Amino acid sequence: MKEIVAIIRMNKVGVTKDVLAAAGYPAATFQKVMGRGKQRGLVGEVKAVEVDKATEMVLSSTAMEFIPKRMVTIIVDDRDVERVVNIITAVNRTGQIGDGKIFVLPVEDSIRIRTREKGYEALI
Amino acid sequence: MKEIVAIIRMNKVGVTKDVLAAAGYPAATFQKVMGRGKQRGLVGEVKAVEVDKATEMVLSSTAMEFIPKRMVTIIVDDRDVERVVNIITAVNRTGQIGDGKIFVLPVEDSIRIRTREKGYEALI
Amino acid sequence: MKEIVAIIRMNKVGVTKDVLAAAGYPAATFQKVMGRGKQRGLVGEVKAVEVDKATEMVLSSTAMEFIPKRMVTIIVDDRDVERVVNIITAVNRTGQIGDGKIFVLPVEDSIRIRTREKGYEALI
Repeated sequence: MKEIVAIIRMNKVGVTKDVLAAAGYPAATFQKVMGRGKQRGLVGEVKAVEVDKATEMVLSSTAMEFIPKRMVTIIVDDRDVERVVNIITAVNRTGQIGDGKIFVLPVEDSIRIRTREKGYEALI
Repeated sequence: MKEIVAIIRMNKVGVTKDVLAAAGYPAATFQKVMGRGKQRGLVGEVKAVEVDKATEMVLSSTAMEFIPKRMVTIIVDDRDVERVVNIITAVNRTGQIGDGKIFVLPVEDSIRIRTREKGYEALI
Repeated sequence: MKEIVAIIRMNKVGVTKDVLAAAGYPAATFQKVMGRGKQRGLVGEVKAVEVDKATEMVLSSTAMEFIPKRMVTIIVDDRDVERVVNIITAVNRTGQIGDGKIFVLPVEDSIRIRTREKGYEALI
């Protein structure tokens, strides 16, 4: 099993969710995060110290900013990793900086609390 | 070391925390997440496009919804995994859809910032 | 590749971000979490049942509390782990309980959505 973690644009949550569900992957977890990649946020567009009121995130005064993003986490069988990565990439690729990243981490076990099913049985 | 990640009902946070602490596992991290399993949320109960104001989560118009959940993360020694999983399962199992899931991921190291202790010493 | 997850004090987010960026690690993700270590939060300082309004976190009546923290996640090449851990430790160490912890998890792959770059190429 693998954990696929995607950091995507906020306005891509709906379509990502819908396309994953249509492809047979309805189970997912979404979180609000603040993030940036190597582009260091919107450099030059922020001129003073700012605090994001909604997230209480302390923004620096160095004209670098973190952007509100959504983190999508999906646990899949090994054989589904490439397909899910391709789906997320296809849906979220605009070609502009800020499209996000996907990380793949190993998962050793999965348990469905209601039935106590384990492993792959807990995913499907 | 392992990372135990549990996605549980919001109203189970208090008892989960208390029982884990009583069993010797007081250290934990809680996060707000939106999630669903293979049941695709509360299918049929949502009739129109909705946006959750508190979380800014974009909900689809397809009558599928993500449910507010809590993610509990605990880092434990290998020998504690089965016990912690059993505690979380026992406390969170209602038998109804939506009880949640537990995932176990490998952790290579742990550092306590205050003392610079590493590995198992950083956990206890 | 490794995932470095640090649970730090809220008021250390700015300096942590700035020092990491100055050292060549501008990419990071920040999340709001509630957490505690083995000290079980601010024991004895909370006298009654409380609910944190901002996070909707259910706090117990047992005088144990979870503290608002920030989770910083950085994905780095294996060779950068020790340096990044040392930077985060140095910046966040006050010597007081509550300085936080750092965990290191294995990452199998990384994908930049915009360019479809994979592995180390997706990090730099």
